[in-house]
Amino acid sequence: MASEFSVTRRVEFSETDLAGIMHFTHFYRWMEICEHEFLRSLGLSVDMEDENGRFGWPRVKTACRFKRPLKFEDEVEVKLSVSEIRDRSIAYSFQFWKKENGEPVKAAVGEAVAACVRFDRLTGAMTPIHIPEVFRNKVQQA
Amino acid sequence: MASEFSVTRRVEFSETDLAGIMHFTHFYRWMEICEHEFLRSLGLSVDMEDENGRFGWPRVKTACRFKRPLKFEDEVEVKLSVSEIRDRSIAYSFQFWKKENGEPVKAAVGEAVAACVRFDRLTGAMTPIHIPEVFRNKVQQA
Amino acid sequence: MASEFSVTRRVEFSETDLAGIMHFTHFYRWMEICEHEFLRSLGLSVDMEDENGRFGWPRVKTACRFKRPLKFEDEVEVKLSVSEIRDRSIAYSFQFWKKENGEPVKAAVGEAVAACVRFDRLTGAMTPIHIPEVFRNKVQQA
Amino acid sequence: MASEFSVTRRVEFSETDLAGIMHFTHFYRWMEICEHEFLRSLGLSVDMEDENGRFGWPRVKTACRFKRPLKFEDEVEVKLSVSEIRDRSIAYSFQFWKKENGEPVKAAVGEAVAACVRFDRLTGAMTPIHIPEVFRNKVQQA
Repeated sequence: MASEFSVTRRVEFSETDLAGIMHFTHFYRWMEICEHEFLRSLGLSVDMEDENGRFGWPRVKTACRFKRPLKFEDEVEVKLSVSEIRDRSIAYSFQFWKKENGEPVKAAVGEAVAACVRFDRLTGAMTPIHIPEVFRNKVQQA
Repeated sequence: MASEFSVTRRVEFSETDLAGIMHFTHFYRWMEICEHEFLRSLGLSVDMEDENGRFGWPRVKTACRFKRPLKFEDEVEVKLSVSEIRDRSIAYSFQFWKKENGEPVKAAVGEAVAACVRFDRLTGAMTPIHIPEVFRNKVQQA
Repeated sequence: MASEFSVTRRVEFSETDLAGIMHFTHFYRWMEICEHEFLRSLGLSVDMEDENGRFGWPRVKTACRFKRPLKFEDEVEVKLSVSEIRDRSIAYSFQFWKKENGEPVKAAVGEAVAACVRFDRLTGAMTPIHIPEVFRNKVQQA
Repeated sequence: MASEFSVTRRVEFSETDLAGIMHFTHFYRWMEICEHEFLRSLGLSVDMEDENGRFGWPRVKTACRFKRPLKFEDEVEVKLSVSEIRDRSIAYSFQFWKKENGEPVKAAVGEAVAACVRFDRLTGAMTPIHIPEVFRNKVQQA
């Protein structure tokens, strides 16, 4: 039932640190990139407008367990599944896979809960809202 | 019993995103900065050598709950406590505090588990090790 | 005549790369941080409003020459001078100084030209404008 | 005579800032990503070993002129040409192209000079060296 989606990325030089591995913060960046790519694949965006104005998806919770280091130029598949669609938020889970000696190895698992908010047109202030129907429907069908 | 330590930072322009708030990945960077500052305050470092060579502290787990957005130029206090010292890892917890109308407000809470590893002198490969005594003692006393 | 201003920073773990040195992009981030700190010291901000709305300072040109690598935990002084105040832009120059064997060494020199723009209230579109008087005066006096 | 190479990228959410545009530091990151992709296309890498050990390519100079802002989800082509191969360094130039109303528009132009250095096996210290023949030949033929 859960939709599965994935993107493949290669570890960039600027993403490594002095320990020679990808800095852990970039796992979170990659999760977000994967989520946005997933939304784009449905004709949606993390930064959209409907008749009531602009709405977006700040994170309310994220977490990650790191099992294997990623090295410069490693090719990594990030897999997304939608774990739960609530009234005002969507929970995603992620897996990071790389190859070691030709075998796929799980390098990390993560999760992210993004809440739907409306941006005030002038001040940019964010108010939690119910997920707009058009958005919810497309994610549910995925 | 838990040691408390804190650093104060101001949100940088480059840390904001198009929603006008600090991008969530920087909360994790700030936790790490706070942890390293804490170690330095004890005369330690996240990148040290002892008689057996170089050792370091890759993360095995991190998590964060975001309660309030941080804005450009917000001044934020990051508080660290050592939640647990295990044989091969240390668990830290973090709180992010900012002022809203003069009142301190908790903007986020996070956690990080860092494992102690030895770096191979030539290849840089990492092997989990028991936390060296000198390190453990200083953190325990803190 | 040129105003001089400086900030001191320590190289963060997440700013290093697998070559064990600060990734060059962070020199640029540090220049911007120094510029914003400079503006704050004058009671200004890179993100301000006057009676005509919000105005800001996107970069139109930046450059840097790297002379010495910066390492994790290096303490570095970033010095800013205002090289030129034009009608619609300000040119800054920067020097990065660190200590090597107790002696100050110039690690890098950089420059940045920031143009003054007005943000459209609704679309956020940017239009170049003359530097508002209050801003120009404070920078000139510095 | 100059080799031309290009990569296409989409502006990520985390690359934007509160002005709603890509933060200027990412232009530099993108130049480096393009350069590394170029080297990979020749069977080379920015982090290589030959019979004398590991060698790499720290930047000695970079610069960029910003002509048009890049926005979230903009698709951008980064074009690289090798401007000059010297004894110990390579100079690259870059162009950033995006579409505005269907027409290609130059959003930025940049340059980077990368110097060839040998890493000391134990300390990681960098010494400038002549570009190894195998590397020079492949770049020259490109």
